[in-house]
This record gives sequence, structure tokens and C-alpha cells, in this order.
Amino acid sequence: MDQVLDDFRTKILPGVTHWQSPSFFAYYPANSSVAGFLGEMLSVGLGIIGFSWITSPAATELEMIVLDWLAKLLNLPEQFLSKGNGGGVIQGSASESILVVLIAARNKVLRSVGQNALEKLVVYSSDQTHSALQKTCQIAGIYPANFRVLETDASTNYAMRPELLQEAVSQDLEAGLIPFFLCATVGTTSSTAVDPLAELGTIANKNGIWFHVDAAYAGSACICPEYRQYIDGVETTDSFNTSPHKWLLTNFECSLLWVKDQDSLTEALSTNPEYLKNKASQANLVIDYKDWQVPLGRSFRSLKLWMVLRLYGSEALKRYIRNHIKLARYFEQLVSQDPNFEIVTPRIFSLVCFRLVPKENDEKKCNNQNRKLLDAVNSSGKLFISHTVLSGKVVLRCAIGAPLTEEKHVTEAWKVIQDEASFLLHK
Amino acid sequence: MDQVLDDFRTKILPGVTHWQSPSFFAYYPANSSVAGFLGEMLSVGLGIIGFSWITSPAATELEMIVLDWLAKLLNLPEQFLSKGNGGGVIQGSASESILVVLIAARNKVLRSVGQNALEKLVVYSSDQTHSALQKTCQIAGIYPANFRVLETDASTNYAMRPELLQEAVSQDLEAGLIPFFLCATVGTTSSTAVDPLAELGTIANKNGIWFHVDAAYAGSACICPEYRQYIDGVETTDSFNTSPHKWLLTNFECSLLWVKDQDSLTEALSTNPEYLKNKASQANLVIDYKDWQVPLGRSFRSLKLWMVLRLYGSEALKRYIRNHIKLARYFEQLVSQDPNFEIVTPRIFSLVCFRLVPKENDEKKCNNQNRKLLDAVNSSGKLFISHTVLSGKVVLRCAIGAPLTEEKHVTEAWKVIQDEASFLLHK
Repeated sequence: MDQVLDDFRTKILPGVTHWQSPSFFAYYPANSSVAGFLGEMLSVGLGIIGFSWITSPAATELEMIVLDWLAKLLNLPEQFLSKGNGGGVIQGSASESILVVLIAARNKVLRSVGQNALEKLVVYSSDQTHSALQKTCQIAGIYPANFRVLETDASTNYAMRPELLQEAVSQDLEAGLIPFFLCATVGTTSSTAVDPLAELGTIANKNGIWFHVDAAYAGSACICPEYRQYIDGVETTDSFNTSPHKWLLTNFECSLLWVKDQDSLTEALSTNPEYLKNKASQANLVIDYKDWQVPLGRSFRSLKLWMVLRLYGSEALKRYIRNHIKLARYFEQLVSQDPNFEIVTPRIFSLVCFRLVPKENDEKKCNNQNRKLLDAVNSSGKLFISHTVLSGKVVLRCAIGAPLTEEKHVTEAWKVIQDEASFLLHK
Repeated sequence: MDQVLDDFRTKILPGVTHWQSPSFFAYYPANSSVAGFLGEMLSVGLGIIGFSWITSPAATELEMIVLDWLAKLLNLPEQFLSKGNGGGVIQGSASESILVVLIAARNKVLRSVGQNALEKLVVYSSDQTHSALQKTCQIAGIYPANFRVLETDASTNYAMRPELLQEAVSQDLEAGLIPFFLCATVGTTSSTAVDPLAELGTIANKNGIWFHVDAAYAGSACICPEYRQYIDGVETTDSFNTSPHKWLLTNFECSLLWVKDQDSLTEALSTNPEYLKNKASQANLVIDYKDWQVPLGRSFRSLKLWMVLRLYGSEALKRYIRNHIKLARYFEQLVSQDPNFEIVTPRIFSLVCFRLVPKENDEKKCNNQNRKLLDAVNSSGKLFISHTVLSGKVVLRCAIGAPLTEEKHVTEAWKVIQDEASFLLHK
């Protein structure tokens, strides 16, 4: 054992990127906590596989309970609660959430118009939608020509424009195509843009389009009343996803998906082999989560979320979110005060999008400088940030949200960025 | 904390089915071990998300290393090793393994014949293939009419018959359809049937059919030289899957998938958004496992498998497998000695398929009796077994493989079964 742990320290740890470091500001955070860790330990210790209710009733029942709790904390519409035909389920990731609802939506349409209509099905998203949707379309066999990527720009802070959606849907209908799936985002990956759910939902509902919302990162902020506005309009959606493993202190994997119509999911995903038949399932007395997801096997993931909710409580979780947003506001101020830098899009949650400003209007040179700065900062080994491109501009992303990040880490990060920038600018 | 743990004990634990109990004989085992638990703790503690090499190089590299180790332990063909265009990856489950390779195979064919040929694609399996294949076909949009389920019976101990496959393929070709995917099984769910890989592979290879082997449960046994014969012919396959989380002491989730042609996977599943671009990936210097699986996010799953391999070593793992098979042989003998019971299919690994024998040739009554016995045994709360149906016969399954199971647990289980049976027979 000593030798193995020694190898772990000397051969593996040096190659690890420390997502739990307080100086990790890349991508979006991957939260963990002692509460989540304890929940995971209990789950791993029990080692149960809860694919059907019968294979461990508590696993299914606790999952229904905590998903209802979270739905209430987010003030989601009643139809997402487990008491009716809706309900929530823990998926491994936002990608899997998108996949299962897109398959459910696809099969629902194809059941009524025939399987060979696949080539007519159209999916709508924006150029800011996560690549998980593209991957899902590849898996679902959606024709690439029917994958609409609506353009966004700085005028809406990269949010989807409902008039573009309406236009695209009308054109597709005229062309004899079948609009069937819309994925909107609350808190896009590049810049936390917030698509206008209510307006988009009106269009989707009118046209019988399945409306899914990906709020993987920003959904957690919406437990705070002052941020709940960003999911206003969620009542118009068919499915909603947020991932507490990103920003709500619950260890990976824990991505929550709610649907209004569980039948659509189970009709697409259920199978009923003899070796899994049992009285409770046959009598429709229970939910079998195997029919809500891609894999058959599933661990007791609700335990860690239950632990987090019980041990922190909703008020502490809100304070946790607010503190990160406060730190992001602080970082934003630091950037604003330096004439070499600019904020590229307004900060909404805990992500700050910024860059070195162009000199002599040379955008190409400016992009190169920002790429060099990114490399220099990350090569310092003192922090980790990532980048994106918005309207052709290379943009640096500082995503605050690691559980251990304090003001001093933000201050230090900014100092490294400034130092590397001034070295670069004076070279 | 005390209150929460108290609720765990009093409100959650009573509803848990104890898969780790030494008297759990249902389905297939879901192994865990102290070594696997430690590995999982390290992984959860690090809390990294290794979707690209750059996001934690050690996670990708250790996964490549341990998958190569396992491939060598199983004596898999060289093309499955990471040094060429092949390689292994840890999926969450056998279902996800089947999904990604079927999508890879589907897209490879459609790239050459056009996307609208989807309706012509044919999948081959047997009536013993796991329901994960049916689910995958539903997700992939394979036409239900093109899902061939070849019949099996007792004459081959429920193994697939190559001549039936050849017949079906020929008919489909004549009908202008496109045979493209074959899923064989080593150790079927119902009765551990072993499909004849070499003969099936010859047919698949000749017809350009992607040949996948699901050895989720029984693959672990093939690390023992005396059981390696059951995957003879694996050199003819395109992909091979086994799940150490079932029977190799590695905690869930850990399902290993090897492919000969990683390009097929990544062409089907890769996306390349700006916010994930990095020099190592762009220069093709590294593997990014995000393009080998459905979700983007992935945890450091190789750590637990590494821990198991390092702390047990291959000889102890072989002894572990052999001990379970010895216990299954012991259970088989107990059953054989009781004239009220019969063994339904020959035992190959650690699953025993048995039933109460029919009285007066009344198969229907016999099935009812066996269902009643199943209920009675499980209602005792002393053990958990499951069932299947083979050629219309209700069959009881005793799957030995929980890490803590010893001879005394098997003896006790048999005693409960016998007692409940004699109560039932004399009622």
C-alpha cells in the first residue's frame, strides 16, 4: 500500500490539473465539498445498483424527494414535480440530459409522422449553445442540414434572438420541414449569456417544438431570489437541466433533469426484458429510472445531493453562490481599472470575460496578444484560466466558483495576469 | 451531522437492497473492494474533470496505461492496445459501450452510402442479447423492422447459431438492405451463454459488419488461462467490452471498451468548440477521451482500477474468480442432489440456472411454482435471487460473485431455497 500511494504521489499527482484549487478559474467549476464527499462515500460503500425501484427502493425514492426539493428551491413549475406526470432524475452530465430529451422528442414526433420523416426534423439552437447539442444531434441522426445555429452578437450580449427563431421556424415550415426541438441556454459556456426563455417558449409552444433549457452552470444561482429572474419563462419549457456538480457543492456526477411528461422519456428509452421483470414495475406502482436514462446501471447519486442539502441548508447555499458572484464583481472591478484591459460582455453571474484592448485598432494582433497572455498566465502554474472567441475576438474567461476561492486568490490571480501582460506589452 | 446520519440509518437504510451482502445472488454482482473504494476516494477527493488531455493529463494517461494492462491480462489482440490506432476507454456501463460503437459503425456506413440509407441498416443479435442493444437501436434510430433477433434454444445452450446469422445476412443483402452491426455475447444475462466468436466473426468480417462483443460479466473470468478460451475469436471483433465493476472488485462505474479503430469513434462523437481548443489537441499529440464517449465530463475512473490491479495483482484476481466459480460448482452440486430440482443449462462461470422440476409434465404449473418459490425466497429477506425465462421455462438464477460470499452463505442460501420449496410443495 505504501508503495502504491508513493507511486500515486510521485507519478500521478504531478500530472494532475487541480480543479479543486482555489486558483482554478478555467471552464466552469467542478464543485466538491466535505458533505458531497461523505454522501459519495456512503454511496460507494453501499455499492447498490438502482436501475429499477425493486433493486433498491430507497435509491429511487430519495432521488424523487431531493429532485422535488431542488425544484421547489428553484421555484420550478408544479408540472416538474414528481406527484403528476412530471419529475426529476439525476443524469451524469448535461450532455446526457440533452441526449435523452432530444431522443424523447424525436421519437414522439416520429411516432406520429413515421420513422422515415427523420430527414425532415429540425433542431434550433444558437451559436452559443454548448457543443453537447451538436454531439447529441450526431448521435440521434439529425441531418446536419437541419441543425439551425442562430447567430448571436454583442447587441443582445450573445443571447438568442426570438425573431431569428421565428423566422427560421417559418421558413422551415414553408419548406415542408418539421421543427421539433429547441435548446436554449441560461448561462452559456462562453459568456453566461441568458436566452429569453419566455419569448422563445411562446414560439416553441405555438409550433409544438420540444423546448429544453440547459442551465448547467447558472441554474444553481437561480436558487437566490435575486437571480431567479434569469429562468423566468421556465414554465414554457418541456425540460430543464442544471448541474449541482458544477456550482452547488455536490461532487461529480450530479446533473439534474426535470421533464413535464415522463411518458415521452420512458416511451423512447424503456425496454422490458424478462430478467428485470418484477411485480412492482409490472403493476406500474413505481418509477424505474433505468427508463429515464441511457445506461441501465445507476449508482445512489441522490445521497450526495441529499447530504449537501441537509448539511448546508438553502440559506448557506445561497450565501455560497452570492460570495462567488461578489468575488467575480471584485475581479471585474480590477480589470476595469486597468486601461490595458476591457470587459468584453457584461458580467451576470460569476464569469468575467475580458481581454487586452487592441492597440491601433489591430484586432488580429490583439487576438495574438491575448492568446499569448493566456499561455503565459497558465504556464506560470499559479492559476488556470481558459478562453473563448466572441464575434472574432479572443476573450479570456475567469470563472469563479471553486469552493476554496477567497478574495486573496482573486487578487493574486489578477496580479499574475497583470504582470504577464505588462511583460508581454513591453517586450 | 448526527441528525443527518441518524436519518440515513433510520429512514434510508431500511429501504436499501444490499448488493454487497454475501447473500446477494440476483442479477449479476456489482463488485466493490477496499482497494476500489480507496481509488474512488482519491478520485472524488481530486475532483478533476478529464474530458481533454489538457484538463488533467494524468487522467488520460493512466487510463491508457491500465486499459493496456487489462488488455494484456485478457490476452486481447495487439490492435486493441493504445500504441496503434486502437485503444481502450472506461465507460460508465456496458450500455454506453454498445451505444458508442453502434453510433460509430452507423456513421461510418452512412458516410459512404448517404444519411438517408438509415432505413436500410440492419443489426444482428440473438434473443439472449442484453436489452441494452435494443435501447441503443431505439436511440440510434435503427428501424425496428431491421433489428434481427436470432432465435436460440437449448441445443446450443442458448448460444447464437452462426448458420442463422449467415442466413439472415444473405436474405438481407438480397433484399437490398445493409448488414452493419453484430453484437455477440460472452456470458449472456439469462444463462451465461457464450456465442461462438470465431465463426460469427468470420461472417461479420466477410460482410463488412461491425462486430462487437459484450462480455460485461464473464470477461473478468477470461483473465484465467483456463477460461480464456471463451473469448477465442476476439481477434475477429471490432470492439470488446467487459465491466470490472461487475466481477473484478472495482467499484461502479467501470466498464472497459476496446476498439481497433479509434478514428471511427472520434469521427462519430467529436466536436471541437472554441472554448475547448488547446495546442495539444489541435496538434493531435494526445487522446481526448471526450470524443470516445457520450458525455463531455468524465471523472478519474482509472484510479480505482489502477488501485485494484496494483493492490491485488493478477494472481490474486485469478484466485478471486476461481473461488466464485468453485462456489457456483458447489451450489450446482447441492441442486443436483435434490430430486425436486434440476439444473436448466450447464454452468460455465459462476451463475447457476435451476428450477423446481415439473410434476406430471405440467409446465404451466411448474412455472407458477417457480415464480412462487422466487417470491417466497426473496420475501424471507435472507437472500436475493432473480429469474429469467428460457424456452418458456421460468428459471431461477443464482449468480455468485459478491466479494464477501463464502461457502457458508451458499449453504445457507440453498437451505432457505429448499425449505421454501418443501413448504410450497407440501401445501
